[in-house]
Amino acid sequence: MIEREHFFESGADEAIVAEAYQAIVEEAEGDEVGYYHLPDDQALVSRIEAFVLERDLARESLENVVVLGIGGSSLGTKAIDTLLALTHHRDESRLRRRNDKNLIFLENVDPNEIEENLKGVRVENSIFIVISKSGGTIETTSSLKYLLGRFEIGFDDARFRDSFVVVTDEHSPLDRMAQEYGVKAFHIPANVGGRFSVLSSVGLLPLCILGYDIGELLKGAKELKESFFAKKEDALIQKAYFYASRKEQIPMNVLFSYSSAFKYFNQWYVQLWGESLGKLNLDGEHVGLTPIGLIGSIDQHSFLQLIIEGPKDKSVTMIKVENFENDLKIPNISIPHLEKTDFINNHTFNELINAQCDATMQSILDQGVPVDRIVIDRLSERSVGYLIFYYELLTSLVGYFLHINTYDQPGVELGKEILKKRFTSSI
Amino acid sequence: MIEREHFFESGADEAIVAEAYQAIVEEAEGDEVGYYHLPDDQALVSRIEAFVLERDLARESLENVVVLGIGGSSLGTKAIDTLLALTHHRDESRLRRRNDKNLIFLENVDPNEIEENLKGVRVENSIFIVISKSGGTIETTSSLKYLLGRFEIGFDDARFRDSFVVVTDEHSPLDRMAQEYGVKAFHIPANVGGRFSVLSSVGLLPLCILGYDIGELLKGAKELKESFFAKKEDALIQKAYFYASRKEQIPMNVLFSYSSAFKYFNQWYVQLWGESLGKLNLDGEHVGLTPIGLIGSIDQHSFLQLIIEGPKDKSVTMIKVENFENDLKIPNISIPHLEKTDFINNHTFNELINAQCDATMQSILDQGVPVDRIVIDRLSERSVGYLIFYYELLTSLVGYFLHINTYDQPGVELGKEILKKRFTSSI
Repeated sequence: MIEREHFFESGADEAIVAEAYQAIVEEAEGDEVGYYHLPDDQALVSRIEAFVLERDLARESLENVVVLGIGGSSLGTKAIDTLLALTHHRDESRLRRRNDKNLIFLENVDPNEIEENLKGVRVENSIFIVISKSGGTIETTSSLKYLLGRFEIGFDDARFRDSFVVVTDEHSPLDRMAQEYGVKAFHIPANVGGRFSVLSSVGLLPLCILGYDIGELLKGAKELKESFFAKKEDALIQKAYFYASRKEQIPMNVLFSYSSAFKYFNQWYVQLWGESLGKLNLDGEHVGLTPIGLIGSIDQHSFLQLIIEGPKDKSVTMIKVENFENDLKIPNISIPHLEKTDFINNHTFNELINAQCDATMQSILDQGVPVDRIVIDRLSERSVGYLIFYYELLTSLVGYFLHINTYDQPGVELGKEILKKRFTSSI
Repeated sequence: MIEREHFFESGADEAIVAEAYQAIVEEAEGDEVGYYHLPDDQALVSRIEAFVLERDLARESLENVVVLGIGGSSLGTKAIDTLLALTHHRDESRLRRRNDKNLIFLENVDPNEIEENLKGVRVENSIFIVISKSGGTIETTSSLKYLLGRFEIGFDDARFRDSFVVVTDEHSPLDRMAQEYGVKAFHIPANVGGRFSVLSSVGLLPLCILGYDIGELLKGAKELKESFFAKKEDALIQKAYFYASRKEQIPMNVLFSYSSAFKYFNQWYVQLWGESLGKLNLDGEHVGLTPIGLIGSIDQHSFLQLIIEGPKDKSVTMIKVENFENDLKIPNISIPHLEKTDFINNHTFNELINAQCDATMQSILDQGVPVDRIVIDRLSERSVGYLIFYYELLTSLVGYFLHINTYDQPGVELGKEILKKRFTSSI
């Protein structure tokens, strides 16, 4: 399903690999880090599918799935939907297909964007999913208040119970509000952080309403999980060790994904990597690795020059999709004066983009840049679930090697306090 | 219109500033770098406006403006349209408004995306603008061949002459093809590189068809140009010197833009910065600065943690839009159990996002990160033209201080050769 190759020497010996493996085993068995268990929760899949059925959320008259959430509450869902939406619409053989509902995010507090996003959104044709782990995210609560005001919905209103769902930690303020007014709540396990939560109800609920096979997502993740805990993923540990041990010389890790469908997956990776690995370590040092997401072939015309001729301070992971399930072909047309481009005639775009991926990788390798490659046979719930879990595990491993707490984000609290002070002192 | 503040000491003395100024003056007076002259070309504006009128491209039945182009041929147009589109639809006082035509890019060779983009596109309801400086960009010629095949258009066909326009260098293969078959061609000055070309017909032609006031774009750019050549922009030179002289300690330059409208402007910046500054310098050293684009407040929930607690290897430029021309308000609703978020009630989203920008900047400054801020009063053709030219000048200045050729991109040729070999040897 997914093949991986590393074109560098990691430098991790057997003892290092064994120790790291053991550390992850202990972390997964402990109480503090919960994301390791998400792939096993087929019971949650059943609960979500039952809820979608019971509320008839697949009905055609429900046109909009509106997610109120930011960061870990939005990026994963957006990533998966964007990875799969076009493939779903192509693949005739698929049993379940994404429906035509709009997936809308009330994410940023940019007023022009909010207004644009809400064009055509009415309470009757929409389901609103309010997602906040802590329950008090200022962007999300502001959007919620705005919707309540805009649609003149009171907390006791039946429209509130019928058209709103919350996804939050149990006993959070948002959860208590939901309980009080009879709004359906799904809970995020307390030990699953926002950026590791896409395979919880945070991602599964909206994706299920859109028609995706969320059970398959978990199965894909579980495939990698089981392989790892069966000690078959030494290469993953070696890759993590390489990144962590070369953090001074190679502070940036580029993900170069050859399909426009990875646009938001790249952003999800940027959050996961940046927020998890940028930390004060146990010795009080500032450590971290900077994630960079690129799209091929577009960024061959943008960032590639810097990789090739700039400082050798980046690693590169190429992602290639073997089969786009789309046979659009470049016809056998010779454009007068442009006959030199005829070498591409009669080839498919699928062939072209993949040959570009290979050629670019070769040109980067030739510069001595550390490269690895992930080849996905086709984009499906299963391969995407696998890929998600691959990056989560990789992040945990790098965090282990960096001696940091991979799962918190203390650095962003100061800004929130300054914000609150600014408003409360000005009132 | 645009205010700028630096919160760091650049270390550039008067002599350094004077020398850099002189170098740019000479560059602008010479023949090799042409972008400096684009803001003065109001004659081009007239030619483009006359062409749009003559072909009646503003007509309602023309629904799609399809740009075939990648990198420097697409990013700038996309950036400007995304910056201005929502503002245009808000601002009642505006004389010219963006019309409702779809702006579609055939950019990546991702087959699923191409097919999705062409839904609803017919020759009769579209204008196709083929943009390639060299004339032989493989992505662009492949898309062109695909369109000719899909719509069964021959080179002698009137539909080819009527619905296609090319933008390319004079005498390029694409230009010669256009001349031969009577297709209208606009020329990119030979000494204007792709990533510096948005203020040439590359950007002006599609933006004019969409209804923007392209004369104002140039006027905004000209405002900064004149200020620079009147020796009033020492701060810009100092900023460039700071970035170049700290390239070892601070290899990454973050642009943190507080509005979703900057999404593609950030990408335009990434191309401009990365491709211009990642080079072998005159001493054969690999130099370069890595650009990173962030959107506020979204990326407070993603990348900010890394800036705050990670290694001190980044500078940050905050961009803030003072006035969104949209007064969406957070209503005075107190959500039970979430009363602690009431401090934001009765404020506008405009106030909230800007307060977040200020608070985040303060929290970054507190960590000793070098920060500067660009405050734009409102998004308009004029302020956007100014901002574009600001970044182009800044890039030229940093390139001068790095002792590199800012305007070429030799590193990307190898991949193109490998690609061609791959196909020609397999045929």
